[in-house]
Amino acid sequence: MSQDLPRVVIVGAGFGGLRAARSLARLPVRVTVIDRRNYHLFQPLLYQVATAGLEPESIAHPVRAILRRQQNTEFRLAEVRAIDFIARRLETSSGELPYDYLILAMGSTTNYFGLESVMRNGFGMKSLEQAVAIRNQVLRQFELAIQDSDPEVRRARLTFAVVGGGPTGVEMSGMLSELTLVVLAKDYSQLDLDDVRVILLEATDRLLTDFPKRLQLATSAELRRKHVEVRFDAKVTHFDGEKVQLEGGESIPTRTVIWAAGARAAPLADRLRLAQDRLGRIRVAETLQLPENERVFVIGDVADVPAAAYPLPMMAPVAIQQAEVAARNIARLLQNRPLERFAYRDPGSLATIGRGSAVARLGRFHFHGFLAWVLWLVVHLVQLIGFRNRLLVLVNWAWDYLFYERAVRLISTDDRDAGPGSSPG
Amino acid sequence: MSQDLPRVVIVGAGFGGLRAARSLARLPVRVTVIDRRNYHLFQPLLYQVATAGLEPESIAHPVRAILRRQQNTEFRLAEVRAIDFIARRLETSSGELPYDYLILAMGSTTNYFGLESVMRNGFGMKSLEQAVAIRNQVLRQFELAIQDSDPEVRRARLTFAVVGGGPTGVEMSGMLSELTLVVLAKDYSQLDLDDVRVILLEATDRLLTDFPKRLQLATSAELRRKHVEVRFDAKVTHFDGEKVQLEGGESIPTRTVIWAAGARAAPLADRLRLAQDRLGRIRVAETLQLPENERVFVIGDVADVPAAAYPLPMMAPVAIQQAEVAARNIARLLQNRPLERFAYRDPGSLATIGRGSAVARLGRFHFHGFLAWVLWLVVHLVQLIGFRNRLLVLVNWAWDYLFYERAVRLISTDDRDAGPGSSPG
Repeated sequence: MSQDLPRVVIVGAGFGGLRAARSLARLPVRVTVIDRRNYHLFQPLLYQVATAGLEPESIAHPVRAILRRQQNTEFRLAEVRAIDFIARRLETSSGELPYDYLILAMGSTTNYFGLESVMRNGFGMKSLEQAVAIRNQVLRQFELAIQDSDPEVRRARLTFAVVGGGPTGVEMSGMLSELTLVVLAKDYSQLDLDDVRVILLEATDRLLTDFPKRLQLATSAELRRKHVEVRFDAKVTHFDGEKVQLEGGESIPTRTVIWAAGARAAPLADRLRLAQDRLGRIRVAETLQLPENERVFVIGDVADVPAAAYPLPMMAPVAIQQAEVAARNIARLLQNRPLERFAYRDPGSLATIGRGSAVARLGRFHFHGFLAWVLWLVVHLVQLIGFRNRLLVLVNWAWDYLFYERAVRLISTDDRDAGPGSSPG
Repeated sequence: MSQDLPRVVIVGAGFGGLRAARSLARLPVRVTVIDRRNYHLFQPLLYQVATAGLEPESIAHPVRAILRRQQNTEFRLAEVRAIDFIARRLETSSGELPYDYLILAMGSTTNYFGLESVMRNGFGMKSLEQAVAIRNQVLRQFELAIQDSDPEVRRARLTFAVVGGGPTGVEMSGMLSELTLVVLAKDYSQLDLDDVRVILLEATDRLLTDFPKRLQLATSAELRRKHVEVRFDAKVTHFDGEKVQLEGGESIPTRTVIWAAGARAAPLADRLRLAQDRLGRIRVAETLQLPENERVFVIGDVADVPAAAYPLPMMAPVAIQQAEVAARNIARLLQNRPLERFAYRDPGSLATIGRGSAVARLGRFHFHGFLAWVLWLVVHLVQLIGFRNRLLVLVNWAWDYLFYERAVRLISTDDRDAGPGSSPG
């Protein structure tokens, strides 16, 4: 590829960044995708890793393998530290990188809403490492519970609180209940199942705000059938690692708080001195450009598009649609044609509640149950990058479904030494 | 199960410990298996994880799942800190544990032969974490090499030294050469393949000492055909993280030294104040009991059995055979019958050299090539615990074999936070 072609730099290899790269494949540009991880993460299945249903490797795919056949595109593993919009240059952990056009697609991070104690003692749900950390934590609490003679401590270890009644919190609490009450119950038959509690704490009076009322009710009914304690108007104020405090004074003894209550723009957005909304997202024009800089596009979780009638959800479909508009607009800029405005076409929503149960909102069609679950499975399998990953995921799911089993029940440790030297505590 | 039955405690859930537990299933005893990990590790395939051929989860299986159906056996996740042989009691990280009979089967750790610098800067090959660390290191060096403008540094980053010409070193160097020259070459097409070197450093004048001369020669020829630089009489004396020093003064610039040159008994063996050999293994009688204590058996990598004509290799078949003898001898003690003496029946050896190639020594039969590789594959698949794991491993292998691909090329990081805050350095 020619060195004279304009260079498009894409920050982030998530759904938005990769779709943007793909959409630029046939344009007369050189593309560089930069990310601090060497893999694309299929975030919608992260909760499956956290509940020992899938191996971490099944939902991650090397960026180089995805982009390999795209002649005009290269990948760089590095962290972006700053951006000089005047000189049109990124400062990265591996040197400077000039650009002619820039697409910011670095996604989101956990939003703890200023709750320091939860950030320190709880578990986020945004990265592969966090998902594995949750898996380790849940299994370790079972191992410690079985060795503990104090019934209060044992009950606290076997209590798992999930915070946030959005799709992640619903999926997480449903699967966690299955993992603990169905699968782990077989491994820890000495434990009293009445001691095991999965609690879903939602600050408002409803789950899945994005779904119609009927499906919200069906979801909480289904979760309760799966022995999840669904608590509404339960606002977490503090978690010291031993008990979680709710507004109003109640406290619940638990060692495990999984925070699925919100996301905000990735920290890089805060360092660029651009106008942001209250979730840290960068304000853009309807063309997805910075108002003051036509060469810079912002898409996905990190973009705040003003024209939308309601704030857009931080979800893959939004990022993917915006990526396509941004790529087309770069083509139009190169051709001096007027730019396209972004308008979101809502494809609907799906959320699983556990084994064989999901809710679906597809245009006029709202339904729940097994059919929704099959639809969810097909949609996610098709989207999952790489045929091999699809196959492995399917094997895992079929296995779980047939044998009520979870194969990935490993507690991984960090130490590099092989000898029995470190504590499992 | 009755509380009055004698209690057998097994330390370690490796090949020896689990076989011992299984052999005690029908005896009138209560069995407790104790390990600091909650999973059994299929060590013979560790090098596949290190070379991105298999997911870590494919070669590890939860101990509780393995032992679940065995009525008289329980598992305890804990670290053994000391043993009081007089009071017949283990001190563990989760309290005391009394025993009537004890089987020590805690396996081995890396033997650096006192080379502090290699221990600090090199990579061992005994645990799942170490294997993942090697995978991360190799991939990261490629990512850094592609960004480095200094040709000397680039070459050093792309030089990988494997130390030790035993089965692990041979398998590791063969697979590493395939990973780097065949698979990664596709992902990093801008790199000059001549810069990539895999070097196997062997201190003596031969590989695979356990095999006949003809197969040793075939192995080094095959490794060289796969572009591994096989170096004999190359004794490592120092590694500072930038270059590895050999006896005689030569030094090779590299960032990656993988140490497969030896094993020694797990550290717990050193803390028991028992007679040990130079590899830290505990001296036992031919009945596998401690000479001074008929209630304590020692098996596998941590046992030094005097009667053997040559020192027994630290390999699964030895541990498994000894486990069966130890279990039978506990039965005989309970019945006041004379004890059995251990005699090793050598089942032969297999080692892969890479894609479609292996060496086999089975009694009088010595052969190498594709047939040996198929045999190796079948033997390892059959031994691998759990049908699901077998299936996943087979999918991975078939995939690699058909597409010269490695699916697990992820650089995993330790940080728990999701945001792009830490360096990929």
